[in-house]
Amino acid sequence: MIKIGIVGVGTVGESVVKILEDNKDIIRARSGKEIVVKTGVVRNLNKERDVNIKLTDNYLDVTTDDEIDIVVELMGGVEEAYKIVKSAIENGKSVVTANKALLAYHRFELQNMTDKPFEYEASVAGGIPIIKALREGLSANHIESIKGIINGTCNYMLTEMKKGANYDEILKVAQELGYAEADPTFDVGGFDAAHKLLILASIAYNIDAKPDDILIEGIENIDTIDMEFAKEFGYEIKLLGIAKKDGEFIELRVHPTLVPNNQMISKVEGVMNAISVVGDKVGETLYYGAGAGGDATASAVISDIISIVRGSNAPMLGYKKPLENGDFKLRNRDEIKSKYYLRIAVSDEVGVLEKIASIFAKNSISISNFLQKQGNEFVKILLSTHEAIEKDIKNSIEEIEKLNFVKKPVNVIRIEE
Amino acid sequence: MIKIGIVGVGTVGESVVKILEDNKDIIRARSGKEIVVKTGVVRNLNKERDVNIKLTDNYLDVTTDDEIDIVVELMGGVEEAYKIVKSAIENGKSVVTANKALLAYHRFELQNMTDKPFEYEASVAGGIPIIKALREGLSANHIESIKGIINGTCNYMLTEMKKGANYDEILKVAQELGYAEADPTFDVGGFDAAHKLLILASIAYNIDAKPDDILIEGIENIDTIDMEFAKEFGYEIKLLGIAKKDGEFIELRVHPTLVPNNQMISKVEGVMNAISVVGDKVGETLYYGAGAGGDATASAVISDIISIVRGSNAPMLGYKKPLENGDFKLRNRDEIKSKYYLRIAVSDEVGVLEKIASIFAKNSISISNFLQKQGNEFVKILLSTHEAIEKDIKNSIEEIEKLNFVKKPVNVIRIEE
Repeated sequence: MIKIGIVGVGTVGESVVKILEDNKDIIRARSGKEIVVKTGVVRNLNKERDVNIKLTDNYLDVTTDDEIDIVVELMGGVEEAYKIVKSAIENGKSVVTANKALLAYHRFELQNMTDKPFEYEASVAGGIPIIKALREGLSANHIESIKGIINGTCNYMLTEMKKGANYDEILKVAQELGYAEADPTFDVGGFDAAHKLLILASIAYNIDAKPDDILIEGIENIDTIDMEFAKEFGYEIKLLGIAKKDGEFIELRVHPTLVPNNQMISKVEGVMNAISVVGDKVGETLYYGAGAGGDATASAVISDIISIVRGSNAPMLGYKKPLENGDFKLRNRDEIKSKYYLRIAVSDEVGVLEKIASIFAKNSISISNFLQKQGNEFVKILLSTHEAIEKDIKNSIEEIEKLNFVKKPVNVIRIEE
Repeated sequence: MIKIGIVGVGTVGESVVKILEDNKDIIRARSGKEIVVKTGVVRNLNKERDVNIKLTDNYLDVTTDDEIDIVVELMGGVEEAYKIVKSAIENGKSVVTANKALLAYHRFELQNMTDKPFEYEASVAGGIPIIKALREGLSANHIESIKGIINGTCNYMLTEMKKGANYDEILKVAQELGYAEADPTFDVGGFDAAHKLLILASIAYNIDAKPDDILIEGIENIDTIDMEFAKEFGYEIKLLGIAKKDGEFIELRVHPTLVPNNQMISKVEGVMNAISVVGDKVGETLYYGAGAGGDATASAVISDIISIVRGSNAPMLGYKKPLENGDFKLRNRDEIKSKYYLRIAVSDEVGVLEKIASIFAKNSISISNFLQKQGNEFVKILLSTHEAIEKDIKNSIEEIEKLNFVKKPVNVIRIEE
């Protein structure tokens, strides 16, 4: 019999307890053992909960209990969770966590702290086994790129905006449906996706970057007119977490992205998640499924527990040794290469286009597609560029925004083909 | 240092040797060890090969070599491969195989023979890590269903037929492109997909069925007119391998299938593979990628080797113990439940429809969609049914085919929604 302790008995924790009971038969057959939740750690002992396990509000009751083999951390947050997981490791426990924020900040420290199994399948894309895919299934490959729809809230909102809803309307609906928080910034601002991207990137590239180090843009400025441009030129707009190898440099970025509508990842709708991974040998593989929800997330948590019970031994971030020819370097965000889409609101004057075009030319940016639309107040110039360097785009935009006839900040969406 | 022997140095074997060299750095970092191919076993020592390893035509040089830890079987075929893998096991080797036919017939015997790692990721869907996903990533779930596009040749042909090509034309093209063999039966007849389905089903259900035990139909009778019906009613036609749980019964079947065109799996085009798995807790997850090709398949083979070098310990078919409440039973193919599409060629006479409708009514089959098209020679009746039982459909068809005005065998495509 294997005894586990759960720190944080909220939606996911309750699902873990229930599934261990509901699917006891298959879990025992697959793991070879009985898995029992001995203790749950909660902040508030008085709150009513839908599970029948021993509860405590002192995490040491779990991390220092000699009978407990595996500590499952489902509380969320960074520093308090770090303290508790550290205590679990110091007391020789195996750890399972679903905590993306903890890992976005502390995954390398945690890896260096423990020789015991440390599993975190649920931290990215809920029930989709993307961690195991990257760490084990694709281990023979140099990873060329990862492109992930890893925030269901944003994908839901963008799917509805494509159907015609505007941003504010659909944010309200998302909040009513429980897809978005009262303060939605963490989701719509791209920060949640960034946490997950950093985890995936460390498995692909062994790269230790923190959220502050990378380009993060949210979907707040997407307008229905961008959806029209996308439709006109055969794209879908998706919030993507992107990790890309270019020689010794790794680009890490989260932003709304125009994706050609013949790619599988462009077809992912609603709250669903998907991650496209390109390996140098295997080509593209894609993983699709529910990225959130108590049961889907608990499915991943329990798969980790079963792996540990079977005797898991894959190294936490996938590397038993450092790479021989040194580590990859994070590319400075100003040096990112991409194609770009820009939306520029101008007043209807002679010479507008010429002025804008000359600024692009001066900055070595060449235009690919162009669409001009009469808006309610202003004329909207929608255009896409061939590949350019981020800082050249930034400079161009700065100059363009200084022009008298430009009436609003320029909006940018990057294009990935 | 880990030494391996490869039995069968064809396209995949050559890719394995080359990738172990090309990606030596990342493979060493992830596995923690140097992996070296010591010996390759080939039938014909005189054939020129694009690899620089020691070759032999005697498999015992590999299976009984004390320096070799892992035997990688890439020769294909059933009985000879079984003999060699058995010899490897008897000599204490870990085994990696890409051989779906071997596993379709002998997976349970092999599992019972060995306590060493036995990995076979490459046997299903090439580079897509679907074995690990089912065996490890989804291990907390009872699997409700598996639906897989697991034969790239058929998916390529059906994709092209949708664009208007007819079956004979596109088979010829597929043969020219190397997607189909001179005798294409193994692919277009559904047998290749059946082998792969049986492997997936044993991980999901621990069920030991052989190819002869299950319903296997190929794409040979698909006509462009079926594509028109599909389009009219919002379906795509895909050859699917299907495993489904219904109480204690498991349905296993391979056949062309009408799939609603809003499902992710319906969007998979060309030679690509995808497997949709529904777990009772995680919901649907889907895995997409290249199902064939030397490098993609070798990517899976080497991921297995790396797993073994790291110390893999997942049980071969995913079960450490039998299920407590007994095993699942294979559902008799006459008892399969499905919705059906039928194509009936009739001469243009009064009372045809009434006659056919009365036969369906007698067999408790109710009609859902209906389309009648004037063909060159005959009138074509295209219809779909609500859920029915296979034997009732069979009986109806038998009666219908006896009618004077019915001019050809009735064609059937099952519908999965």
